Amino acid sequence: MTIASSDVIAQLRRELLILHRKLVTWGLVVWTAGNVSARIPGEPLMLIKPSGVDYDLLREESFVVCDFSGGRVEGSLTPSSDARSHGYIYAHMPHVGGVVHTHSPYATAWAARGEPIPCILTAMADEFGGPIPVGPFAPIGDERIGRGVVETLRTSRSPAVLMKNHGVFAVGATAEAAVKAAVMCEDAARTVYLARNLGEVEPLPAHDIDALHRRYQTAYGQR
Amino acid sequence: MTIASSDVIAQLRRELLILHRKLVTWGLVVWTAGNVSARIPGEPLMLIKPSGVDYDLLREESFVVCDFSGGRVEGSLTPSSDARSHGYIYAHMPHVGGVVHTHSPYATAWAARGEPIPCILTAMADEFGGPIPVGPFAPIGDERIGRGVVETLRTSRSPAVLMKNHGVFAVGATAEAAVKAAVMCEDAARTVYLARNLGEVEPLPAHDIDALHRRYQTAYGQR
Amino acid sequence: MTIASSDVIAQLRRELLILHRKLVTWGLVVWTAGNVSARIPGEPLMLIKPSGVDYDLLREESFVVCDFSGGRVEGSLTPSSDARSHGYIYAHMPHVGGVVHTHSPYATAWAARGEPIPCILTAMADEFGGPIPVGPFAPIGDERIGRGVVETLRTSRSPAVLMKNHGVFAVGATAEAAVKAAVMCEDAARTVYLARNLGEVEPLPAHDIDALHRRYQTAYGQR
Amino acid sequence: MTIASSDVIAQLRRELLILHRKLVTWGLVVWTAGNVSARIPGEPLMLIKPSGVDYDLLREESFVVCDFSGGRVEGSLTPSSDARSHGYIYAHMPHVGGVVHTHSPYATAWAARGEPIPCILTAMADEFGGPIPVGPFAPIGDERIGRGVVETLRTSRSPAVLMKNHGVFAVGATAEAAVKAAVMCEDAARTVYLARNLGEVEPLPAHDIDALHRRYQTAYGQR
Repeated sequence: MTIASSDVIAQLRRELLILHRKLVTWGLVVWTAGNVSARIPGEPLMLIKPSGVDYDLLREESFVVCDFSGGRVEGSLTPSSDARSHGYIYAHMPHVGGVVHTHSPYATAWAARGEPIPCILTAMADEFGGPIPVGPFAPIGDERIGRGVVETLRTSRSPAVLMKNHGVFAVGATAEAAVKAAVMCEDAARTVYLARNLGEVEPLPAHDIDALHRRYQTAYGQR
Repeated sequence: MTIASSDVIAQLRRELLILHRKLVTWGLVVWTAGNVSARIPGEPLMLIKPSGVDYDLLREESFVVCDFSGGRVEGSLTPSSDARSHGYIYAHMPHVGGVVHTHSPYATAWAARGEPIPCILTAMADEFGGPIPVGPFAPIGDERIGRGVVETLRTSRSPAVLMKNHGVFAVGATAEAAVKAAVMCEDAARTVYLARNLGEVEPLPAHDIDALHRRYQTAYGQR
Repeated sequence: MTIASSDVIAQLRRELLILHRKLVTWGLVVWTAGNVSARIPGEPLMLIKPSGVDYDLLREESFVVCDFSGGRVEGSLTPSSDARSHGYIYAHMPHVGGVVHTHSPYATAWAARGEPIPCILTAMADEFGGPIPVGPFAPIGDERIGRGVVETLRTSRSPAVLMKNHGVFAVGATAEAAVKAAVMCEDAARTVYLARNLGEVEPLPAHDIDALHRRYQTAYGQR
Repeated sequence: MTIASSDVIAQLRRELLILHRKLVTWGLVVWTAGNVSARIPGEPLMLIKPSGVDYDLLREESFVVCDFSGGRVEGSLTPSSDARSHGYIYAHMPHVGGVVHTHSPYATAWAARGEPIPCILTAMADEFGGPIPVGPFAPIGDERIGRGVVETLRTSRSPAVLMKNHGVFAVGATAEAAVKAAVMCEDAARTVYLARNLGEVEPLPAHDIDALHRRYQTAYGQR
């Protein structure tokens, strides 16, 4: 198996280190409970967080190269116990370049209820193109969580899914895009939680959601 | 078109950089979702955040000089997609020197409900002179949000408005005053949210609000 | 009027600077909305925060020496608009060496409701010796808030009071003890808020509160 | 009484200092309200936080060596007023190497209600193997809290217990494992609080909890 150029992997290691820090900055994780991976371009391989390692102790060299069955190809640490699910997502969603998993509190509260987050905010229409959907309950350790993620996202414009009684999986063209989706998912989960505690809320009309989503996907940010 | 002295603009760039950091410090933004602009004195121009740029990566030179239609006059980055709305506000509210837009969570929860924040706190009477009003739902990208802001603030003493299903716009004589209004808006939105979850709340009597507002606008702070 | 030794005042300035930072650290204030003062030993004078100054810009020399009517005796900045109320407290509570005022969100939510925080936690019995009481609504700027604080605390073991529709005043033998009371008040306000959102809560029995309070006031900490 | 090698104790002092900082990082404590201890291997002794000392002022040499009755054996500061309860736990749970006590807000809200936290999250099944149980109300200062902790944990797989109207005690094979349990307890307490505010929640089935707990205790982390 040919490994992608070491420059590319070194760059991904730097990105993953920064992105794991962003999980802490934006309040998406406590202790070691959350992980980010990146697809290694052109290879059936990914780079992923090691299992149970403190965010303060993560280094660029800590990340583990794995195949899509979660088998370690390079690195001395044991990969995340979610590695098989990350791999399943890369194997079945070729446009995905990054995957994130968190137990961020507000989103996980919706997941514990098994209730999709209704699309009542322009920022949700922008990023998710509708409600944030719920995926099935699945055991941890094998690829069944990954399969639930893939099947749920297939019928949604959302890059994030609330896995029942568990937490969030988010995907993106890059690891950074996936982390952005996870951050926006927690932000939406929190604001909609607060709104609902104030009283009744109404979803945005479908045509407004469509127009907002189209504009955001084409006109936002630097090109 | 004459550009204001480069010293003035350089000073505004420094201020905007500090003020964007304050959005993060006081919990008003996640990721890149929020922006501050400043009127360039004596010109039909403003300085505004570029679209979709990470707060950690913002530099003094990142801010973009735009006209009030949102057209870029100086700078290499694409301006915020809210630029036309900022511009509309400057064009129609000559006393406004700074504009802020955030999706701060508690205020946006009230906005999602379309419910004004009742004035039950002396700090709200001080800063807002009454309830924080709700503006209309409007699409993102053109000046319609700006028009909704201007029309709503015309009939209120509040420097902040909750745009329906969207977030907060706040204005001030300076960019710093606008950011202060946005910070106090989120603080009020949170405290009133918490109070209402404890039970019934009563607005302050109008004469107390008037007296508090008058005193604060004339006697608070350093002169 | 004799001013206390400059060493004593210099030491109080250092303490007040550290204590204002603790208001930020523990989430009791946003922007410039909160202030701490310290009695100058042996003089009818206090050292207090200047009005409307950013916490990041406070320096040891920023604090203002005032008499108990809030008149400035030393310093170039305008004192806090709460100076007359701080002074009233020092004048009428000779054992008080420090006063703090905040709009900390959870405690202010109880204040907005005009509802005392029931004593359902051992930590509340320790620090407050019972419920945290509510004081009257009073206008800002003169000594009437101070009078409301003094009258309310006279009939309570609590060093903190929730001023109706306003916020928290806390007192202590030192400025540090007052800030501690303000921090514990917000912590109690938050935990009891959360508990009540989960369902019914029962106050601790009076004899347990008494025993906890007695032990804490005599046996906790370093002697 | 022989004291364990000074190298071992010096290492424990370093660990306790880092772990107390983690209590602050993860939002489990305010002011001085929380403490961690570690068993000194091979001795009927423990190392514990001094009473009422600011987290910023803690140093490696601040921690106090005590026997299991809470008596000071080495060190100049007064030990935590919870020392007798920590000691009781070490004396009666020989597999425990670390004990933590906090008043973390969400967990303490459940404790104030006297309500166990239902196991509705995979992360709770992983760490706690079921609901987080409630222990009895007990006065502070002697070993009765410790006895309540030991009796409650005897009938549970959970390493954490919610002491009625008080706060959290958590234990682990090491002080770090105990702090991890306290962090995960607060995270679970918060997420389940949020979920219940959204509506009804269902505990996970016992067989799913068992399978998750077994896997986590054997397959998670680095070996």
